[in-house]
This record gives sequence, structure tokens and C-alpha cells, in this order.
Amino acid sequence: MKLNTFQQQLNQDSPYDFSGLSAIFLNCTLKKSPEQSHTEGLIRMSQAIMEANGIRTEIIRPVDHRIAFGVYPDMTTKGWEVDDWPPIQKKIMEADILVLGTPIWLGEKSSVASLAIERLYGFSGELNKEGQYAYYGKVGGCLVTGNEDGVKHCAMSVLYALQHLGYSIPPQADAGWIGEAGPGPSYLDKGSGGPENDFTNRNTTFMTWNLMHQAQLLKTNGIPAYGNQRTAWDDRKSKDHPNPEYR
Amino acid sequence: MKLNTFQQQLNQDSPYDFSGLSAIFLNCTLKKSPEQSHTEGLIRMSQAIMEANGIRTEIIRPVDHRIAFGVYPDMTTKGWEVDDWPPIQKKIMEADILVLGTPIWLGEKSSVASLAIERLYGFSGELNKEGQYAYYGKVGGCLVTGNEDGVKHCAMSVLYALQHLGYSIPPQADAGWIGEAGPGPSYLDKGSGGPENDFTNRNTTFMTWNLMHQAQLLKTNGIPAYGNQRTAWDDRKSKDHPNPEYR
Amino acid sequence: MKLNTFQQQLNQDSPYDFSGLSAIFLNCTLKKSPEQSHTEGLIRMSQAIMEANGIRTEIIRPVDHRIAFGVYPDMTTKGWEVDDWPPIQKKIMEADILVLGTPIWLGEKSSVASLAIERLYGFSGELNKEGQYAYYGKVGGCLVTGNEDGVKHCAMSVLYALQHLGYSIPPQADAGWIGEAGPGPSYLDKGSGGPENDFTNRNTTFMTWNLMHQAQLLKTNGIPAYGNQRTAWDDRKSKDHPNPEYR
Amino acid sequence: MKLNTFQQQLNQDSPYDFSGLSAIFLNCTLKKSPEQSHTEGLIRMSQAIMEANGIRTEIIRPVDHRIAFGVYPDMTTKGWEVDDWPPIQKKIMEADILVLGTPIWLGEKSSVASLAIERLYGFSGELNKEGQYAYYGKVGGCLVTGNEDGVKHCAMSVLYALQHLGYSIPPQADAGWIGEAGPGPSYLDKGSGGPENDFTNRNTTFMTWNLMHQAQLLKTNGIPAYGNQRTAWDDRKSKDHPNPEYR
Repeated sequence: MKLNTFQQQLNQDSPYDFSGLSAIFLNCTLKKSPEQSHTEGLIRMSQAIMEANGIRTEIIRPVDHRIAFGVYPDMTTKGWEVDDWPPIQKKIMEADILVLGTPIWLGEKSSVASLAIERLYGFSGELNKEGQYAYYGKVGGCLVTGNEDGVKHCAMSVLYALQHLGYSIPPQADAGWIGEAGPGPSYLDKGSGGPENDFTNRNTTFMTWNLMHQAQLLKTNGIPAYGNQRTAWDDRKSKDHPNPEYR
Repeated sequence: MKLNTFQQQLNQDSPYDFSGLSAIFLNCTLKKSPEQSHTEGLIRMSQAIMEANGIRTEIIRPVDHRIAFGVYPDMTTKGWEVDDWPPIQKKIMEADILVLGTPIWLGEKSSVASLAIERLYGFSGELNKEGQYAYYGKVGGCLVTGNEDGVKHCAMSVLYALQHLGYSIPPQADAGWIGEAGPGPSYLDKGSGGPENDFTNRNTTFMTWNLMHQAQLLKTNGIPAYGNQRTAWDDRKSKDHPNPEYR
Repeated sequence: MKLNTFQQQLNQDSPYDFSGLSAIFLNCTLKKSPEQSHTEGLIRMSQAIMEANGIRTEIIRPVDHRIAFGVYPDMTTKGWEVDDWPPIQKKIMEADILVLGTPIWLGEKSSVASLAIERLYGFSGELNKEGQYAYYGKVGGCLVTGNEDGVKHCAMSVLYALQHLGYSIPPQADAGWIGEAGPGPSYLDKGSGGPENDFTNRNTTFMTWNLMHQAQLLKTNGIPAYGNQRTAWDDRKSKDHPNPEYR
Repeated sequence: MKLNTFQQQLNQDSPYDFSGLSAIFLNCTLKKSPEQSHTEGLIRMSQAIMEANGIRTEIIRPVDHRIAFGVYPDMTTKGWEVDDWPPIQKKIMEADILVLGTPIWLGEKSSVASLAIERLYGFSGELNKEGQYAYYGKVGGCLVTGNEDGVKHCAMSVLYALQHLGYSIPPQADAGWIGEAGPGPSYLDKGSGGPENDFTNRNTTFMTWNLMHQAQLLKTNGIPAYGNQRTAWDDRKSKDHPNPEYR
């Protein structure tokens, strides 16, 4: 991926040091490697910006793995013979940034994206040493491609899930590309207009920088462990409830 | 609103100073004042926590005002006789935190919530002095009540809109209450179980503290104006585009 | 609206007599008349097909009226000074077909569409003489326009609401038009490509014919009043419940 | 599953003969057999009504099979070693009624439901002998269970997909059960209140009868092949487009 002149210049002139950060891109395409994924085409733009800023990145394509269905951390404990998710989860927990990329089918994110989110949810009971949910302090974003319609709907669902799990969502943390109404060329297809789309390029650039800024901020400051600790809430002595007096 | 013992204790023991912050709660109920709004019942819990921490707050009920439909800042410039939105927008722009509260109808956020979001969107072309979108640096959350079903779906839509406009979304920035499947008592109705719901109370508490922490972080640090400036993007000299070489 | 040659030919060669049917199009644009509504541009295509088949039609633009917020049939009984909805509801109840048209804002249907659906919902307690919900026997569809993204998401919400209220949804009862990713010309703007879009034209044509076929079928046969009568359910003597024995 | 007295009476007194119909229930639980599926608990209520009316039914649990990801009819032609979907698709094409049942995770339908819909979509290019989409003439419904929130949101997505593919959706074609806000017992758990929920039972009953009535209507009358034939549209001679003259 060759970035445009302005994207390159931003990287070169940047006064920010993001070299302590790492990012995972989950490419939730339905296509196994080495088949070309259009979603990966867009992911690579964000990846290229991060790498130019010294961030360690990895693109994982879940469909290449045999991932079990379910909402437990390791489904082999629930009767599944194979479950390739736990090592993926480990990488996600070690990364500061998670960007979920998905194609659109019938206006919805892919089943692989749904599966990945269910598996992330399977770890939502875990807490950090402060008693906060384990995803606190991480930053999430979303990239979507399709040839027809549905970027915002998919992003709603993905970003909602991430913040619900404990990710922070910086401003404008989604970007995507679709063609005109109806079937047509996909992002990387010749003549799609995808890589030339100024709106997509700008949004992908802004998303990426906002993810980096927010991840750095949280790496430095963390999310203060006060008022949001699951352990403190559960262990409180008085179990009374608030009272809306004007009832 | 009388908070529970633990919520009160958090307020009293807090080492954090949020007294420089301010918040607006948009209560997007369909009911005009002084009719009781169940959504306001839940909003008051979050408000009480913020006020105990020294934050200036105001609850605005848009349905009490004559707000025009449209996506321009002031619809009287587009032929509407009355438009009460501009002074509401002014308050929102002056606040660090925006919490949009909505009831659920047919599984969706209210039409008043849709209207409010359209009007917020009408200001999305405005930029701050750094050339970022004007909502950058603000923090958003969402509260939802209904008697049946739909908290998460409404929150998806609201939080997506806020982050798309430029708000930052801290972890777990939504909370809500619904009863069991089917019609039944609403939040403030006697015997609803609403104010006693531990899940709702915990989520509302965590949301509120996360909004305060994130707002303070952004008040102090801002969102670095780099890689996300609309003006810089638009004014760039070279208008070439990125090139996914492996096409 | 001048239909294309094939659409005209279908009308001329049709062996079907739909002349006993009537349809209401709710144009949920945010723009008051006489401002041009792009959504109305697409609505007129469906309307032209219906009229050529002898169906009485009317386009109603709710934003031209002062419609109160709320979920009661007539909100003047709830303290609102003006409520223009009841005569609109009367027309909808007299029509066999309802097509809700909406623009897209931030990936969602318009606030006017939300308002219209809330008001339709306000009549959902009404029953026909068989004890079925009053909307039984009617047929619903959806048209969506925007310049960016979101046709399917808006249609999901609209068609769900209609079927939940009691409308029947024939196959492929939605159609829409959007441009490429990002801002751009709207449907009726010069060079938009909207009226030339084969996908949009085909879907609008199929939707319209399916609405007509289904409406005729229901006009003739009705929905048998058995197993779906609210009165019979509520008046049943034995109030026992089903028992999933294998629990 | 033992139906309640009224449900049984409806079956016994029915003047309708549905014995020529058949139905498939897709139980999109994440749990492999023989683990108990709460969604199947609700599905069995609808199934029991259909069977008492002479309809042949089968419940298929896709998670028990090795179904490939993708949008082609048989993914073994695309490099997948195993794909158990084609025989499932065959059963769906032979049935008059399809009910998709899904649990809720993070407010969304399951990944298995997404997968099933993607695979159904993979057949959407197929046409019947009249040149209509192959799903025309079939009837679709949706059942949803969860312990927390999200019935309507899941149903929106499922019913939209089915009608988009060509299914007809009768009135009130969705039903579901959730508990109160927050985690709690699932449908079949002791003390859940699920099987006792009058709202859920009524909606499931009405959905089932409406599916049967509509399926019978379409079995008898079909969807007239006029104005909705893909072949006729594609083969039309004049490729002109409609013209909204008032532009």
C-alpha cells in the first residue's frame, strides 16, 4: 500500500511518538487466504499509517482458522474438538488498538465479524488488577467495505460492541467504502473508484490518527480506576438502591 | 434522587476534581413537561452523581420546545417560522459532556431523539480553531428506558451518531432499563423494579464516572490536532490518492 | 414522472384489475412543500405505476402538517394544542397499501419517519370487527433515498414496524437509491445517476407490483380470522400456559 | 411441548386444512446438540402448533453441521474441504415456511444466524420457472430468545433479509422472549417466567397461525408472475430509464 502524498507527509512530519503501541486488525472477510479480500485493501491503508508511526501491527483473518461458536474463552472445554480462538484473543489482549474490518452482506456485518464479537464477549467477565473490565484502556475502530450499502449500519454494531466490552472509541472511529446503489465492482476491483474516494481516504486517515492519539493518551494516563470497578461494586457492603424520590 | 450508599460514598471519597466540567442531558421523551418522564427518572441518577462531583448540569427536554425539522443550524433561515434549536445547540457546544436519553418505541429511539441528532448533525460542518470538527474534545453517553425491549439497539444508534460527529465515547457509555418481555410498568411506576435493578444502577454509575474521567482527560489534554484536521486535508497541495499496489 | 418503456408496457399489457385498491405514500422528508424532495422523486415512480393500474393514490408529506409527538390517537386529548395526525391516520386506515418513503440522515430514517411510525403505533390497540389488529389486511412497503449510505438499514426499521403493526409485507417490498460513499448529488440532482440506476428502477418496479398483487390477494381473501384474534386470546377461559416438558 | 388449553382448542376446532404444507425451523443457537437450546424451547411451541395442523416440520440446528463461510451455493467449489450447507438449502427450498430462531448476543442475532442468512443469500440468484426469484411463494418468520434485551432488533434484521430474498412476511411474524434488564435466567431455566409469559405465548401463536394462513394462500394462489420477473426485466428490449420530468 502506497499512501498518498499528504498521508506520507503527516507520517514524516509527526511530532508524536507512538512506537510503544501495538494494533491488531481483525479482517472479518468470508474469504480464506490467499483469496483477495477487498476489506483487507482498506485495512492496509490504516495499517500503513500505523506502521509508518512505529506501531507494531498484525492483520488476522479469522476465517483462516477453525474458530468454534460459543461465548466461553476456550470452547474445547465445552465439547468442541478444535478452537483456534484463544491465541487470537491473547494477541488482542496484548494490543492497545483493535480495528475490526468487515464486508457487508445484506446490509449487515459478516458472520465472521459476529463470531469474533461473540468470542470477544466471552472474555468480558475478566477483570484487570484494578477490578475494571479487562478491555479498559484499549481503543477500538471499525473499517467496512461493500459494493452496495451499509457502512454505517455495520459500524454502529461493531463500535457499540467494542465500547460495551470496555474499549474507548475516539472521534470518527469508523471509515468505509461502498459503490453506488446496486451490485458493482468491489473496493480493489479495477475502476471501482474505491482507492480514489476522497471521503473514504480522509475518514480512514482521521480514524487512524484518532486511534493512535487516544491509545497514547490511555497508555500514559489509563482510565482512572474509580467509579468503574466491578469488584468494588460487587463487594460493597450496603446493597440499598437509589431512590427517585419524586415517584 | 437519592443515590444509594455506595454511589454516595464514591462521591464523598473521590480524589478527583471535576468542578470545571459541565454536562447537558437531552431528555428525548415524547412527553411535554410537567408530565412525568420515566427516562428522566434514570437521567436524574447520572445527574446526581455529576452534581455531587461539582459538575454543572442541565436537563433539556426538547419536546417542550418548538424545534424545526431539518439539517441547517437555524431553520428560520429556511422558511420555518419558529426554531427553538439554536439556543439548545449553544448550550451543547458549551458543555463538555452530552448524555442523550431516550425512551423506546417499537424497538427504536424516539422521534425526538432522531430530531435532536439531525439538528446536531446540522452543525457538523463547523470546525474549531485547529480545523477539527467542532465536537472534538467532547464526551458522549446514552441512557435508555422502556418497558419492553430495545436498550442496546437505541444505544447503538445514539452512540454511533455521537462518535461520528466527533464526540469521544468512553468505555461502557450506555445504560438503560427495560422490564420483561411485553407491556408492563415503566421505570418510575410502582413495582417496576427499575430503581432496584442492580444491573441498571451499576451501568449508570460506571457510565457516569467514565464520562467524567474522559471529559477531564480531554479537558486537560485535548485531542491532538494532527492527522485529523479537516482544513489541512482540504487544503493539501497534492491531490493524489493512496495506491493498493497489489491490485 | 415518465416511466420507462418496459414499465409502461407492463402497465398496458397487464391482465390484472387493481382498480378497487387505494394507496397512501407517506413522504417523510424533512423539507416542507414546495421545496423539492428527492424522496418524492422516487415515490413518484411507484405512484405512476399504481395510477396507471387504476389505483387511487395520495402522497402525504407529514412535515407540512403540525403533528404532535406522542403515542395516543389524538394528542389534543393529552394537552397538545394542535395535532394534524388524526385525519392522516384516517386516510391510512382507508387505504389498502401504505408506502413509507424516507431520506437518510446519519444512516438512519428521518425523524419524521420515526414520528409517523410512533403515531401509527398509537392506533395499534384498535381491532377490526373480527378482533384482529386493525392494520390486518393492509400491505406495506418502503422507499429510501440518500446520497451516501443506509437504504437497507432504514428499510429494516420501517418494514419491521409495519409488519409488527399488522401489515403484510410482500417479497422485496423495499427499494432505494444512494450515491457512492461520501457526500454527493441527491436523487433528483443533475448527474446523480439516480433515475438512470437500473437496480433502483427494477427494485421499485418489483416492489410496486408485489404490493399490488398482495393487496389484491388480501382484498379478495382477507387474512383468515383464526388463531390471530386478540379478543379471542384475551377472553379465553383457561389461562394456563404451555409447558416445555423437557425442562 | 404441551400447548396451553386455548392453543390446543384452536388446533382442534380449526376449519383449515394445512396438511399440504411443510416448514423448516432453523435454530441458530451457538450450542451443539445435545446441549439444551433455550431458543429451541420457544421454537417447539410454534412447531407443536404446526404439527397439530398436519404440517410436516423439521428443526435444523446449523451449529451441528460443518457449514462453510461464503456466499456461493456450495463452498467446496471455492476451496472449502467440507460444506454441509447444500442439503440444508435443499430442505429449505422444498419447504413452504421458514422460521429462523436465534439467541441474542450483545443485542444482535447470533453469528450462526448471520451465517445461515449469508448462505440463503448465496442462492438469491436462482430463479423459478417464471423468472421470479426462487424464494417467491415462501413465507418467513422469526423467533428470538435472550435473557436480557434485543428481540426486536434481531427480528428486524432477520425479517428484512427474508423479504429481501423473496419471502412473504405475514402480519406479526416475529415473537420472542427476554427477561428483565441485565443477566438472568434463560427461557427454559426454572423460574425464568418464559413459558408463562402471556405476551410471548400470544405472539408465538399469532405468528404461527399467520404463517400457516399466508403459506396456504400462496400455495393456492402463488405470487402472480407479472411485474416481478427478473428474466423479463433483464431481457427487455428498450433500456431507457424513467424520467422525473419536474427535475
